[in-house]
Amino acid sequence: MGLEPQHKNNFQLERIALFSDAVFAIAITLLIIEIKIPEIHPGEISDQELWHVLVQASPKFIGFFVSFFVVGLYWLGHHRLFAYVINTNSKLLWSNLLFLLPIVMMPFSTAFLSEYYDSSLKLPLAIYTLTICMAGFFFFRLWLVIGNPKYDLSKNLSKAILNYNIARSLTIPLVFICACLLSLVNPGIAYLIPPITPLITYLVKRYYKRKYPKIMEQYLK
Amino acid sequence: MGLEPQHKNNFQLERIALFSDAVFAIAITLLIIEIKIPEIHPGEISDQELWHVLVQASPKFIGFFVSFFVVGLYWLGHHRLFAYVINTNSKLLWSNLLFLLPIVMMPFSTAFLSEYYDSSLKLPLAIYTLTICMAGFFFFRLWLVIGNPKYDLSKNLSKAILNYNIARSLTIPLVFICACLLSLVNPGIAYLIPPITPLITYLVKRYYKRKYPKIMEQYLK
Amino acid sequence: MGLEPQHKNNFQLERIALFSDAVFAIAITLLIIEIKIPEIHPGEISDQELWHVLVQASPKFIGFFVSFFVVGLYWLGHHRLFAYVINTNSKLLWSNLLFLLPIVMMPFSTAFLSEYYDSSLKLPLAIYTLTICMAGFFFFRLWLVIGNPKYDLSKNLSKAILNYNIARSLTIPLVFICACLLSLVNPGIAYLIPPITPLITYLVKRYYKRKYPKIMEQYLK
Amino acid sequence: MGLEPQHKNNFQLERIALFSDAVFAIAITLLIIEIKIPEIHPGEISDQELWHVLVQASPKFIGFFVSFFVVGLYWLGHHRLFAYVINTNSKLLWSNLLFLLPIVMMPFSTAFLSEYYDSSLKLPLAIYTLTICMAGFFFFRLWLVIGNPKYDLSKNLSKAILNYNIARSLTIPLVFICACLLSLVNPGIAYLIPPITPLITYLVKRYYKRKYPKIMEQYLK
Repeated sequence: MGLEPQHKNNFQLERIALFSDAVFAIAITLLIIEIKIPEIHPGEISDQELWHVLVQASPKFIGFFVSFFVVGLYWLGHHRLFAYVINTNSKLLWSNLLFLLPIVMMPFSTAFLSEYYDSSLKLPLAIYTLTICMAGFFFFRLWLVIGNPKYDLSKNLSKAILNYNIARSLTIPLVFICACLLSLVNPGIAYLIPPITPLITYLVKRYYKRKYPKIMEQYLK
Repeated sequence: MGLEPQHKNNFQLERIALFSDAVFAIAITLLIIEIKIPEIHPGEISDQELWHVLVQASPKFIGFFVSFFVVGLYWLGHHRLFAYVINTNSKLLWSNLLFLLPIVMMPFSTAFLSEYYDSSLKLPLAIYTLTICMAGFFFFRLWLVIGNPKYDLSKNLSKAILNYNIARSLTIPLVFICACLLSLVNPGIAYLIPPITPLITYLVKRYYKRKYPKIMEQYLK
Repeated sequence: MGLEPQHKNNFQLERIALFSDAVFAIAITLLIIEIKIPEIHPGEISDQELWHVLVQASPKFIGFFVSFFVVGLYWLGHHRLFAYVINTNSKLLWSNLLFLLPIVMMPFSTAFLSEYYDSSLKLPLAIYTLTICMAGFFFFRLWLVIGNPKYDLSKNLSKAILNYNIARSLTIPLVFICACLLSLVNPGIAYLIPPITPLITYLVKRYYKRKYPKIMEQYLK
Repeated sequence: MGLEPQHKNNFQLERIALFSDAVFAIAITLLIIEIKIPEIHPGEISDQELWHVLVQASPKFIGFFVSFFVVGLYWLGHHRLFAYVINTNSKLLWSNLLFLLPIVMMPFSTAFLSEYYDSSLKLPLAIYTLTICMAGFFFFRLWLVIGNPKYDLSKNLSKAILNYNIARSLTIPLVFICACLLSLVNPGIAYLIPPITPLITYLVKRYYKRKYPKIMEQYLK
C-alpha cells in the first residue's frame, strides 16, 4: 500500500484542474437556472401567448448563449494552460482561485444584464463587462505565473505560445470594454460588439500564425 | 518532480470527459430542482389534498423521469464514445462543448414542457424536441469528428461500430420529431411516442447485431 | 501519443465512479438550497423573532441533517462497492444510473417531508420512505450485479463481504419502512425511528463480525 | 483486463478527494445563487435606481466575497492535507464527510447573515460563526486523524507541519468567535474582524516559519 511520490505529485496537480472543471461546469449549468419558466395567467395560455412571452424573454436566451460560450472559452483556455503546468505552488493555487471568482459570478452578471437589458441603461452592461474583465485579467495573470521561470511551474512553454495566450486572454476583456465605452455614445450598437468576439479572436490567432508559423501550427492543430 | 508527457496527454484527454461528466451530473440533478414543492393553504393541508396536488403535478414527475433517462442515455453514449478517443484537438473540444449546450438546456426545456403540458399546446413540445434534436445532432457530429481518420483522434473504431453509433445518435431526435409532427394531427397520441424510445433503440441494436454479429457481440457485452 | 488499452480501461471504469460522485455531491449540496431564508416583515426583525422563525423551520434543518447523512452513507457504500469493480459492462452502467435516480430525488423528498412535517400527515413520510427504499433496492441490485460471477465485474469479493453488504444495503430501507408502518399506528413515535439507523447498522455489522471474524476485521479496518 | 491493486488503491483514495472537490465547487458556486437579481417596478428602472438597489444589496456581495474566500481557503487546506494521505479507512471517510457538512451549510449561513445584516442583530452572525467553527473543528479533527500514527494514513507528515496545520485550522474559527463575542459589546466593530483573517493567518505562518525555518521553507514554497 501507499503511493509513489510521482503519482501523488501528479494527483495534487490534477486536483486543481478537476476542482476548476467542477466550478466551470456548475457555473455554465447554473446559467440556465436564471431563465425562469414564464408565468402566464391560466386563462390566457395559448401557443401565441407562450411564443409572445418567449420572444419577450429573448434577451435572457441571448445572454445565456453568450455566457455559455464565454465560460466555455475560458474553460478551453484553462484546459490549454494546464497542458503546460507540471508543478504546483501556493501562488498557482491562489491565482487559480482568483480566476474562478469571476467565473462563479457569471450567472449573476448574466441574469442582471438579461433582466435589465435596455439600451438606455448602462449599469447592467458595465457590471457584465467588469466580470468579463476580471476573468480576462486573472487569466492573463495565471499565464504570467506559470510562464515565470522563477516558479518552475511549466514545461515546453515557448515565448511565442506564452505571448499568444497573453494576447488572447486580453482579447475578450478589450472587446467588452470597447462595447461598454461605445454604449456611452450609442447604446444600440454597443450590444452588437460582443458577438464579434470570435472574429477578433481569429484575427489575433492569424497574427501569431504569421509571426511564428511553425510553433503556432504545432500548437493549434 | 514534473510529469511524463504521456501521462500529461492522457490527463488532458481525461479532463474533457470529466468536465463533461460534471455538466451531465449537474444537468441531471437540476431536473429535480424544477419540481417545486407544492404550496397549500395552511388550513387545507391533509393527505388527500397533498395527494391531489401531487397528482396535478404528475406531468412534472413524468417530465423529470423522461429527461433523467434522456440525459442518462446521452451520458452513457458519451462514455461509450470516449472509449475510442485517444487524442484531442480543438475540433474535438469545440464539438464537445456544442454537444453540452443542449444538455445544459434540458432542465429549462423539461420544466417548460411540464409546466405547459396540455394537448392543445404545441410550442412546449416543439422546444423540448428542438433541444433533443440539438443533442442528437451534435452527438452525431461528435461521432463524425472522432471517426474522421484525418484528425487521428480515435483507435479501434471500426466502420460497423461508427455506423451503429451514428444510427443510434439519430434515433432519439427522430422519435421526438415524429412525436412533434404527430402532435399537429393528434396531440394526445404524440405524448405516447417518447416512452417507446427504448423499443426503437432496441430495434436499431438488433438490426446492427444481425448485420455485424461478431463485432457487435464484442461491442455490446 | 495515444493511450495504452489498460489505462483506457481503467479510465472508463473510473469515469462511472466520478460521474456518480458528482451526482452525489450535487444532491448532497442541493439539500441546503431547499432551506429558504425565512422572510420577516421589516418592522418585526429582532433576534427573538429570527430565533422563533428558525425554531419553526427546525423540521427543515432536521430533514437536511438526516438526508445529508443518508446521501453520505450511500456515497460511502458506493465508494466501498467500487473498490471491488474491475470491469464494466452496460448492465453495470444501467444499474448505476438507476441507483442515482433516488439520490437525485432526495432533495425533493426531503423538502416535501420537511415542508409538510406533521404527525397527522402520512404522505410526505411515505414518499421519503419510497425514495429511501428505491435507493436501498437499487444499491442491493448493484451489489448483486457486481457479485454475479457471470459478468466477471469484480475481484476479491468474498461471499461473506457480498452478504454483509447486501444486508447493509437493505437496512436503511427496512428502518424507514418500519417507521412508515408505525406512523399508521403512532405517528409521533414513527419520526423517532430514522435516527436509530446508526444503531441498527452497528448491529448488522456486529453480527457479520462474529460470523466471519477474520474477513470482516480486514474489511472494516 | 482488470486493475492492478496499487492503481485501485490510489483511485479509491483519489475518489475521496474528488468527491470533496465537487462538494466544495458546488458550495462555492451556489453562494452566487443566493444573491437574487433585485426586482424594480418597471416604471422606476434607471441607472440611478439600479445603482441604489445594488448598494442596498452590498451586504450580500460582501457576504459572497467573504464566503468565497472562506470556502476557497478550506479547499486549499483540504488540498494541502491530502498531499500527505496515502491510505484510507472508514475513520478518514467519516471525518471527511463531517468536514463537508459545514461546507455545504455555507450558502445558507452566508445568505442568512447577508439578509439580516444589521448591527443590532446577533443571531445571523452567531449562526455564521457556528458554521465556520464547525468547519474549523472538523478540519482540525481531520488533521488529527491523518496525523495519528495508529491509523497509518499519512506519509512524510512531520510533527512541525502537523502542528502548523492544526494551528491554522483553528485560526479562522477563533477569529470568528472573537468577532461574535465582540458583537455583544460593540456590534459595529465585530464586522470588521473577519477581514483581518489573512493578517492573523500570516502571523501564525511567521511564527512557525521562525520556529521550524527549514521544514516550513520547504513546505511553503
